[in-house]
Amino acid sequence: MTASGSTTSATTTGGVATAKGFRAAGISAGIKATKRLDLALVVSDAPATAAAMFTQNLVQAAPVLVCKEHLQKSGGVVRAIVVNSGCANACTGDVGMADARAMAAETARLVGCPVEQVLVASTGVIGVNLPMDKLRSGIPQAFGALSGAQGPQAAQAIMTTDPFPKESCTAIMIGGRTVTIGGMAKGSGMIGPDMSPHAPHATMLAFVTTDAAVPQPLLSRALAEVVDETFNAITVDGDTSTNDAVMLLANGASGATIGEAEYASFANALRAVCLELALGIVRGGEGATKLVTVNVTGAASREDARRTAKAIANSLLVKTAIHGGDPNWGRLIAVAGRAGVAFNPSRARVTIGSVVLFEQGRPYDERAADAAEYLKRKELAISVDLGAGSAASTVYTCDLSAEYVRINAEYRT
Amino acid sequence: MTASGSTTSATTTGGVATAKGFRAAGISAGIKATKRLDLALVVSDAPATAAAMFTQNLVQAAPVLVCKEHLQKSGGVVRAIVVNSGCANACTGDVGMADARAMAAETARLVGCPVEQVLVASTGVIGVNLPMDKLRSGIPQAFGALSGAQGPQAAQAIMTTDPFPKESCTAIMIGGRTVTIGGMAKGSGMIGPDMSPHAPHATMLAFVTTDAAVPQPLLSRALAEVVDETFNAITVDGDTSTNDAVMLLANGASGATIGEAEYASFANALRAVCLELALGIVRGGEGATKLVTVNVTGAASREDARRTAKAIANSLLVKTAIHGGDPNWGRLIAVAGRAGVAFNPSRARVTIGSVVLFEQGRPYDERAADAAEYLKRKELAISVDLGAGSAASTVYTCDLSAEYVRINAEYRT
Repeated sequence: MTASGSTTSATTTGGVATAKGFRAAGISAGIKATKRLDLALVVSDAPATAAAMFTQNLVQAAPVLVCKEHLQKSGGVVRAIVVNSGCANACTGDVGMADARAMAAETARLVGCPVEQVLVASTGVIGVNLPMDKLRSGIPQAFGALSGAQGPQAAQAIMTTDPFPKESCTAIMIGGRTVTIGGMAKGSGMIGPDMSPHAPHATMLAFVTTDAAVPQPLLSRALAEVVDETFNAITVDGDTSTNDAVMLLANGASGATIGEAEYASFANALRAVCLELALGIVRGGEGATKLVTVNVTGAASREDARRTAKAIANSLLVKTAIHGGDPNWGRLIAVAGRAGVAFNPSRARVTIGSVVLFEQGRPYDERAADAAEYLKRKELAISVDLGAGSAASTVYTCDLSAEYVRINAEYRT
Repeated sequence: MTASGSTTSATTTGGVATAKGFRAAGISAGIKATKRLDLALVVSDAPATAAAMFTQNLVQAAPVLVCKEHLQKSGGVVRAIVVNSGCANACTGDVGMADARAMAAETARLVGCPVEQVLVASTGVIGVNLPMDKLRSGIPQAFGALSGAQGPQAAQAIMTTDPFPKESCTAIMIGGRTVTIGGMAKGSGMIGPDMSPHAPHATMLAFVTTDAAVPQPLLSRALAEVVDETFNAITVDGDTSTNDAVMLLANGASGATIGEAEYASFANALRAVCLELALGIVRGGEGATKLVTVNVTGAASREDARRTAKAIANSLLVKTAIHGGDPNWGRLIAVAGRAGVAFNPSRARVTIGSVVLFEQGRPYDERAADAAEYLKRKELAISVDLGAGSAASTVYTCDLSAEYVRINAEYRT
């Protein structure tokens, strides 16, 4: 699967409130100084089965800690998700924990459910307390705005430095019934996710809803499988956040149930939705002008392949060369060589697009002009075959531009 | 030791040809299109004892492979070092190996020594063959220019994107005799060295000479000890080259011999010279405007401390925040949390200069203005105490500016 072509894309327009029985809202609570939308709510009319993955960063924001606690207490049953942008509520101590609990409690009161059936997410600056007065007035306002048509507003409200909102949706037929899967995501910088069922990285948030009924173990299995190939396979700057979270709710409103027989269809559809959201994050990466698919093949193990692909995808020298359209393929093999993975460089092959630039220990620098022509594309693929086995991994990244520096040097000031 | 103050600095002006019995030259052989100096020679009048460390990148340039072979054959005896800039002679296959050998052979012929007593180094673009006709006429020209006063020219000739040459020199008294240690280094981008006695990373080259007589095992021990705290403790972009090398020659011309009793004095002087050269590389890092000392303390092990310090020093979000003078301390603790090292965030402490911004799980963001004031400095220190033990590590890095992107997007084109 490459960024430039054969991706199975989600086919329906829609987002987090498109599946039956879900409503969403996005409003301006005044958390951001800019008065942009900054508070989102997603509510399921009926209790939904939930699966979630969170940052593996040792430093976890208060909302992440509260979500884990709630999922455990509720046995994975969720009615609502409340999300704010503009403040990460991370490294905020006891005050931060109390604030995250208060966000959930206010939402639960309005929805009329136990507090542990509410999940909470925050994104923005670390180490600053939430303006709780604004949240206390904003949450009821968002609750009043809930609608099946407000998915786009919710997708706007979770944005921080994102240049555009990310939504995706698809529908499949299961036992004669239409099952819809839709979602929204945010993330632009501090993107280098590495989520586990217990925890993810980089401020990347994604919320996916479906009206299928899915038993919890199957829902968790599908999410873990899909996140590994989508959200965990992207990087903008390799920096992992304290707040990353992916949440998946299944409320059964379609009347279709997913069992082992329907699992593959469901997981494939979920993958399409998550891949479109994940690639949206990379396309909208801070300062990004190009979407780059990094393919590492011929590795001794999948872990070796992933590690090498991530090292290439995070290399400043690779990302700046791609930004400049410079076919500096030597940087690709040099990064592979320092990735901490065993291979014999004389058996490796470096390819930009379909142009082989290094093979059997020999450079083909005379083909650099062809590679330079290919690098003019907005979406492109670079490949390193390690010649050490048959395992492979694909990671998606963007180029590094001066604009990234500008955005991150000025984030708070 | 911080970048801003208490560094023991090398005290004498001078460089690689200052110690007795060494001569150097730097000429323009026409390898660089710009006609700048691009070929350096360092010769010891008498056979010198040598110690060297090379890149641990799996992909090693031809000159690195030839040096290892020569050091083994000669038993660590060296008469000359020949270095070119403008072409790395890496990933150049059999032709590259033959070219590196030919550089050594031509130098050996002129010096009148066995070919294995010549070391070779190259730096520049990867995957392009050396223009051997220019080297064949350039090496005799450099040989003719050899002089004890040509250290500065040699330091110029090894530069690539370096904004200025790096030289350092110091003198100590050993048994009533003056021992001089001097050197030169280059490096600006692809700097994330990780050198072992068998191999380093990032195109960073350093050549140090001394007129002390030092038994080979003691010379190797001093170099390994010093490189760990100097060249291996710096990073510009975390990218490790195929060509990194540090070479240390001791010719005994001072009449002083280093034994166990003199080892500490010698190693301290060597450290001062290497630290000045290493910090010069960071100060002159591609696009750098600030020199940043990253101190990690309270780690469970030295390896944990080093790993955390390197992760912070290589974080794009940290480097851009420092560039912008933004006291975004949350990024420091977030990076520590993803460094793969065990600690309890509620026991950690984050300090910018002397301003504590996070301690015992509590943020002190109200002190951010003081930290912002401190961040206006050109040389500054940031610290994270993990609260998990007593091990520490210091790493030196620079900020990340839009200029870095410009330099690396346009390197070849």
